[in-house]
Formats: sequence, structure tokens, C-alpha cells
Amino acid sequence: MMAAMLTTTTTMILPLLLCALSACALPAGTAALPLPGSSVQLQVRYFDQILDHFNFNSQGDKTYKQRYLVSDQYWEKGVGPIFFYTGNEGDIWAFANNTGFMIELAQEFKALIVFAEHRYYGESLPFGKDSFRLDTIGLLTIEQALADFAVLLDSIKQNFGAQKSKVVSFGGSYGGMLSAYFRMHYPHLVDAALAASAPIPFVSGQGDPLQFFRDVTADFEKYNPKCPDIVRAGFIELKKLADKQEWAQIAQRMRLCQAPSSAADVRHMYGWARNTFTYLAMLDYPYAASFMGSLPANPVNVACDLLLNSKDPLDGLMQAVALFYNTSGTAKCLDPAAEFIECADPTGCGLGPDSLAWDYQACTEINLLCSTNNVSDMFPALPYTAAARREYCAKRWGVVPRETWLATQYWGKDVNSSSNIIFSNGNLDPWGNGGFQHDVGGNVAVKVIGGAHHLDLRYSNPADPESVVTARKLESALLHTWLAV
Amino acid sequence: MMAAMLTTTTTMILPLLLCALSACALPAGTAALPLPGSSVQLQVRYFDQILDHFNFNSQGDKTYKQRYLVSDQYWEKGVGPIFFYTGNEGDIWAFANNTGFMIELAQEFKALIVFAEHRYYGESLPFGKDSFRLDTIGLLTIEQALADFAVLLDSIKQNFGAQKSKVVSFGGSYGGMLSAYFRMHYPHLVDAALAASAPIPFVSGQGDPLQFFRDVTADFEKYNPKCPDIVRAGFIELKKLADKQEWAQIAQRMRLCQAPSSAADVRHMYGWARNTFTYLAMLDYPYAASFMGSLPANPVNVACDLLLNSKDPLDGLMQAVALFYNTSGTAKCLDPAAEFIECADPTGCGLGPDSLAWDYQACTEINLLCSTNNVSDMFPALPYTAAARREYCAKRWGVVPRETWLATQYWGKDVNSSSNIIFSNGNLDPWGNGGFQHDVGGNVAVKVIGGAHHLDLRYSNPADPESVVTARKLESALLHTWLAV
Repeated sequence: MMAAMLTTTTTMILPLLLCALSACALPAGTAALPLPGSSVQLQVRYFDQILDHFNFNSQGDKTYKQRYLVSDQYWEKGVGPIFFYTGNEGDIWAFANNTGFMIELAQEFKALIVFAEHRYYGESLPFGKDSFRLDTIGLLTIEQALADFAVLLDSIKQNFGAQKSKVVSFGGSYGGMLSAYFRMHYPHLVDAALAASAPIPFVSGQGDPLQFFRDVTADFEKYNPKCPDIVRAGFIELKKLADKQEWAQIAQRMRLCQAPSSAADVRHMYGWARNTFTYLAMLDYPYAASFMGSLPANPVNVACDLLLNSKDPLDGLMQAVALFYNTSGTAKCLDPAAEFIECADPTGCGLGPDSLAWDYQACTEINLLCSTNNVSDMFPALPYTAAARREYCAKRWGVVPRETWLATQYWGKDVNSSSNIIFSNGNLDPWGNGGFQHDVGGNVAVKVIGGAHHLDLRYSNPADPESVVTARKLESALLHTWLAV
Repeated sequence: MMAAMLTTTTTMILPLLLCALSACALPAGTAALPLPGSSVQLQVRYFDQILDHFNFNSQGDKTYKQRYLVSDQYWEKGVGPIFFYTGNEGDIWAFANNTGFMIELAQEFKALIVFAEHRYYGESLPFGKDSFRLDTIGLLTIEQALADFAVLLDSIKQNFGAQKSKVVSFGGSYGGMLSAYFRMHYPHLVDAALAASAPIPFVSGQGDPLQFFRDVTADFEKYNPKCPDIVRAGFIELKKLADKQEWAQIAQRMRLCQAPSSAADVRHMYGWARNTFTYLAMLDYPYAASFMGSLPANPVNVACDLLLNSKDPLDGLMQAVALFYNTSGTAKCLDPAAEFIECADPTGCGLGPDSLAWDYQACTEINLLCSTNNVSDMFPALPYTAAARREYCAKRWGVVPRETWLATQYWGKDVNSSSNIIFSNGNLDPWGNGGFQHDVGGNVAVKVIGGAHHLDLRYSNPADPESVVTARKLESALLHTWLAV
């Protein structure tokens, strides 16, 4: 797990961080595999999925192997509902391992459990290792992913004799967006959805570009108003050294494996350092999060204490960064080049093949214009404009982002016509204010005070704040009501 | 108009029949053109439409010219609604010329009028005359067409300062399906829909393959129970001659330009003759339909009288067929080869480029398995199976039809989650029983007794049956209610 902390960084959703290195590396096959923290055995299966749902000629009737995990252990055959996790940007095991609440609920509802992997992630690669070329990546869209889920669900219903089963889609973050979209676009298949930490308006380009990092900053301020000041001071000190090109000094103070040597290196280092705080805020759970290895309970507080007790702001910055990239303390130096890749998503794309797919999505439909300005947030000014995105995406993937498309195709913030979707958000989650904070249409907003990124989806834990216990009870009650109709 | 009757035949929806030869051939440009039967002037405009909405790499940011017609003559600027016709399988002028009720309503509602052409039809050809090749036709799907409408509507709202305007989509037959789908999939853009004669369940593969021609037969039976008997007897006589290979005799009796000479010719002739009755039933309007040239009022009754007064059944069959293919009586002989092409749609694809596009759609998403069996209908047994469709479509277009896709993607008969859609159907329309005959979800079914194919969409006419007058009043009242919310 330590290695993972050093070699993978961020994505919009964290569970996939460790994907390639930990739980995700579970052996494939049709054998049932135990889900850690539960008595459920998940079967690994592969579905011959249509390659291109939206063009009958481009790929003919070619298919690819879409992976999904399934368990009928709790299912009341033919009667109980189907709980369908709409996999997001990573290996499906990462989500199965970190969506314990769905397992707990499945037991309560006697539900069939399905975790469906998103195309172009994990093992569900339409063109194998060649899936990320310009001539093969184009089939990676939200539309294709949702159509995959719909076709797979149809097939599962038939194969399990579950034609009469109601269906609830589940998902967190981008997966939460998908679970909501799945209900919105396929309501004849999906009766209700739990969309946890789903920043639908923001990702549709209908949010405030400064909101995300302002809220990251606010998380640190909540613990101690001095913390953001120290972070800000640390970055200023770093900038002074960079302005004077004191590269060796920077390397020494930040304990870098390799000194920066250009403005580009400095910018990269800023992004790498900022990323620490993004993730500490998103992962600010009240207990050591198992999928983040040894990341301690309440990591924002831990980082804040390091900042408050440091000998000077730059030292504090270094310690906070090391908490994230070298949690175990075993690495001798920090390596921004290996630990962070700048991409179309300013909150990070991670590393490895999954990061390529996410970078592509952030260059096409997923519209993540988050900037820092050093005024409303504690970070160096790193503006990220539509023009910068266009330039990067043209160069990297040969595509022109369609900035209003997501709002057109998936309704943006106007979801008044939909119903039976739970939009849950934690007040510690920097994505929260990019989502729905109030009831809208026939949907219910659930607030989790003291909750970070989709805390409610995780297994119940003795350290859970009361609010998430209540939120989960409410979510269960809403689903009972909606499924009873 | 006569020429048109001889050289074009059927499609699922008739207005496009005469498209290439009559109203559709109006000069293009941005000048306002008068709409016959109304004082409205429609401007012809072209929109730079995204070529591929569902793959960012296949066409890059290439666009094509999508044609649309617009009039703000009645519009209360910034306040009145937008009435948006979702163009179907033909030249958009054909629909503009035959959807007078929308014009009448626009005056009443002070609405902005838009008729949007469907890609691959009329002038909206993504690759010009090369649009029907195997490497270019693949971008013809319902999804792309709806996305076109959504993107165009967004643009119109912006350009006209109509951001606050409510939107009603209108359409008949396949266009009616699209108008309903537009509301279902883009409810943030479309507030209500009038889906006239939209056989959604049937076209989704959820109907009875024998229903269509049974209902064609029933139309003739309604006028006089002897009529179907004569038609049936005529076809039996024809079959006897064919079985004996009396080709010259067939040509003489049916007044064919060229005698058949094979079983395939006979089958083609059966389809051509059957097509007559399909269209007489669909077009069984109580007045001479202007867009069908000289087709008389109540053509089913006229044909029936010809049958009843004929010297023998085969003579009656010939006269009925001539009523459709040689309405004017000026052609010296009938020419099945020129007047009818067998295609993936057993109710006909018409002729010309539009027919190619429709044939492709009937080979991919549009699932039209109508058969005749000579038991529940008056026609020769012409079974059309899924296997036959697959074989034809593989050979013609290199595609494999996806038989359940439409029901998955567009909900099939389960539209319970949608609202504000009027599903109107006439009891004389053979498509009627393939549509929604009862209220479903938040939608209202409107029955038009004495109405053929989307009669309600046409201009008011003194010969209209009382039921369509009432139906239109109800449709207006429903839209007033829904738009007032």
C-alpha cells in the first residue's frame, strides 16, 4: 500500500488510486472471490458487450469483454431488487471494495449485487492494451458506458430470472453521476439511484471554477484558521526560491529526489503539492481508510498539526506533502515527476492506463475547469482556462472539447424532470458544492455533516459521525419507499 | 403531382412521398418562403451541426449543414414558446406543408415555429451525395438525430433570445416517435410533445407482426365487409395465374408495362399491390389530400367501390392498384419495378435517396417486422421474419440489426416515467394499434375516431370529422396547461 502512495496520485475519485496495485489486482475468472470486510463472495464474469452502440457500421457486430462482479448470496430470487453499481474511472474491484454500504443494504433488501466495470478501465479494455490510441479511444464516452450498463442489465435480468426485479443504481463521484444519468435516461430499467458526491452541475460546466480549491482550503481552515495561512506562506517561500532559481535549495527543503530546473518543473511541482491537499480533503474520513493504506484517520487534522508544529512554513508544506506521497516514511525522497502527471483534469488523473482514459474523458465530455488564484484559496495561482484545455486536448488527443455538450445531453443542473435519485454530499468534500445541495424535482438531497467524499457509500464504521448514520438510514428509507411503488 | 404518384411509392410516413418532386423542391436559401395554405413565411436556414455527437475522434470537429425552417411571425419575442417539429424521414418541406395544425396552434400560442430536418434526408446530407456509402451511412441513427435537434434548439434559443421560452416538440409517425423521444431524453429542453401516430411499442419490436396489415384489411372491411373478400379473391386469382406461369395473362389483366417472369417478380408484384392498400388506409382522409395530388377524399371508400363494381376480383384489384399508382389515369400501364422497391421496411421505403436512408434505419434501429398471412389479412402470405431481415441487412448494408436496442434505449412501451406527451392515434390508421391507445405515465392518449395517419396534425378542414376537431381542442388545452406550469 505504501508503494501505491508513492506511485499513484489523484483522480477525481480516489478508490481507483490503488487499483492497479492492490485489491484490483485480484485474479480474474469466474470463481467467487470474497469481498474484504464482508461475507459476500463476488463472482467475476465477462459479458460480450457491443463495441459501438451508436454506429452500426463502424465496428459491425464486434464485441469486447466487459467485466462485472455479481453475487446472488442475499438475493430473494425473482423478487428482491438488483443493486447495480455503475462503475467509474478505475478497476471495478476498487469500487466493490469501497462501497460497503451497498453490500449492507443488499442484505437488508435481499438484493442481487452487481458491480459493472466502465469501458476503458480495469480489465474492460475494448482494444486491450491498444485501447488508448487515437483510432481506438473514440469509443470512450459516457453514452457508450451507459448503454453498456443498460444492455448488461437487460442480459442479467434475463439470465437470473430477474425480469420483475426493481433496480437501484449506485455510484460515487463520477460513478454517482453515472448512477443518476442511468436513472434519468433509462427510467424503464432503473427505478431509483443513490448518487453519492456526484458533482453534476459543476462537471457540466455550470459551476464556479474557484469553488473546488476554495473548499479544499476551507477544510483546513475549519480545523484551524492558521493552517491555510501556513500553506500559503509555504508556497510563497517556494515561489521566492523558484524566482531566484535556487533549485538545489528547493530540492533540499522539499526533499525532492531531483531538483527542478525550469519554470515548467516549478509549475509541475506546484500541481503535485496542491494535489496533496485535494486528496487529504477528499479523504478526510474519521478512520484510517483501508483503501488508502496507512492514511490516518482525519488526515486534514493530521496534516494541519504537522503544519502548526513545523519549524517554518516551507518545512510544514513539505511535511504535509510527504504525509500524502510518503505516508509510511520509507521513501528517501519525494519524486514529483513520478508521483504526479499534469493532465486535462486539474484535480488529477492518476497514473497508469486508467489515467489515460480519464484524461481523454476530461478532454471530451467531462468539463473540469478548476483554477487556483491564491486569493480565495491557499495555493499558487494556477489558472486553468477553456483555451488552455482546448490547446492541451488538441495536442494530446486530437480532440476539441465540447463545452456545453454535457449540459445538453445530461441536463446539467436542470434535473427537475427526474425522480427517485438521492443526491448525497458531505460538507468536508470539496466536490460537494459542485453537486445538488437541495431537493430538486422528485429527487432528494442528503447532507452528511462531517462527511468527506462519498463517506455514506462506505461500510459502517464505529468512528462514523452521527450524521452519516442518519443519512444512511434516510437513504435506506427512501429506497424502501420508492421500490414499494 | 401525377408524376410523383407514378415514380415514388411508400414510406412509413407519406408526406415525403412527393418530396423530391413537389413542395420539397422549393428553392433553398435564407429568403422567406410562403407556406401554402397559410400566411406564414418560413425562412430556410442552415446550421453547422456536429457530424458525430458520440465519438470525438471519428470526425473531429467536422460539421455538416443541417437545414431548418423558421418563422418568428407569430412569436411574442422572448415570451412565447418554441414549436419545434422533429423532422422525420424526408425533405423537411414535406412536413412543413402537411403539419398545418402546428401553424394554427403557433398563432394561438404566439410561438416561434421551427421545422428541423433529419440528418441524411432532404438537403441535410452529412456527406452530400456520398452519404449512403457503407463508410458514411453509419452516422445515421436516432441518437444522432435527437442530438442534432438538441444542439440546434440550444443554438436557436440563444440566437433568438428565447432562453426563457418553453418548448413543444411536434411530429407525426416516425417524427412523432422522435418528438416523444425528444421530450423523454431531453426534458430540460422540451416541456411537452405532440406525438401523432407514433407507433413506439410496435417499432420497438413489442407489437404483433400481424397487426398492421390486419388493420389495413379492417379499414376496407369497415366500409363494406365484401371489399376484403374481393381483394383476397383477386390475389388468389393472381396466384393461380402465377402458379401456371401465365405471365402474359398477368400483365394483361393487371395492365403491367412489363410481364413478370419469375417467382421473384411475382413476389415483388405482391408487395407492390399490397402497398396500394397500405397507403389508401394510411391516407384515408375525408378530403382530397393536397400533398397526395389528386388522391380523392376517403380513398378507401373509393377503392372499395371500384372493387364492388368491378367485373371480377382481379379486375377490381387492378383498379384499386391503379387508383394509387395511376391516380390521374394518364399512365398507359403500371410499372411495379419502377413504382416499388422491396426493402427492410415491409410497409415500403419509397424511392430516391430518402428511401436509402430509411432502408438503412429499418436495417438498424427501426424494427418493422410486419407480415401478411392471408388469414388475418386479405393479402398474399408474405412473411417477414427477423432472420430474413438480418439476411437482407447484412447483404445490403453490412449491418446486424439490434432487435432489442430500441426498447432498451428508448424505453419501448414502458414510458411510465415520462410526462407531457400527447399520443394521438386515429382509428383508421393501421399504425394506430402499434402506438399508445391509453394514458400512460404523465402522458395523455387522444383517440381520433374517423382519423387516418396523423390527421390531427393537418390544417383544419371543413370535412374534418367532429372527433378531430375535439382532439385538436384537447391537444391545445393540454399544451396550455402544461406550458403554464
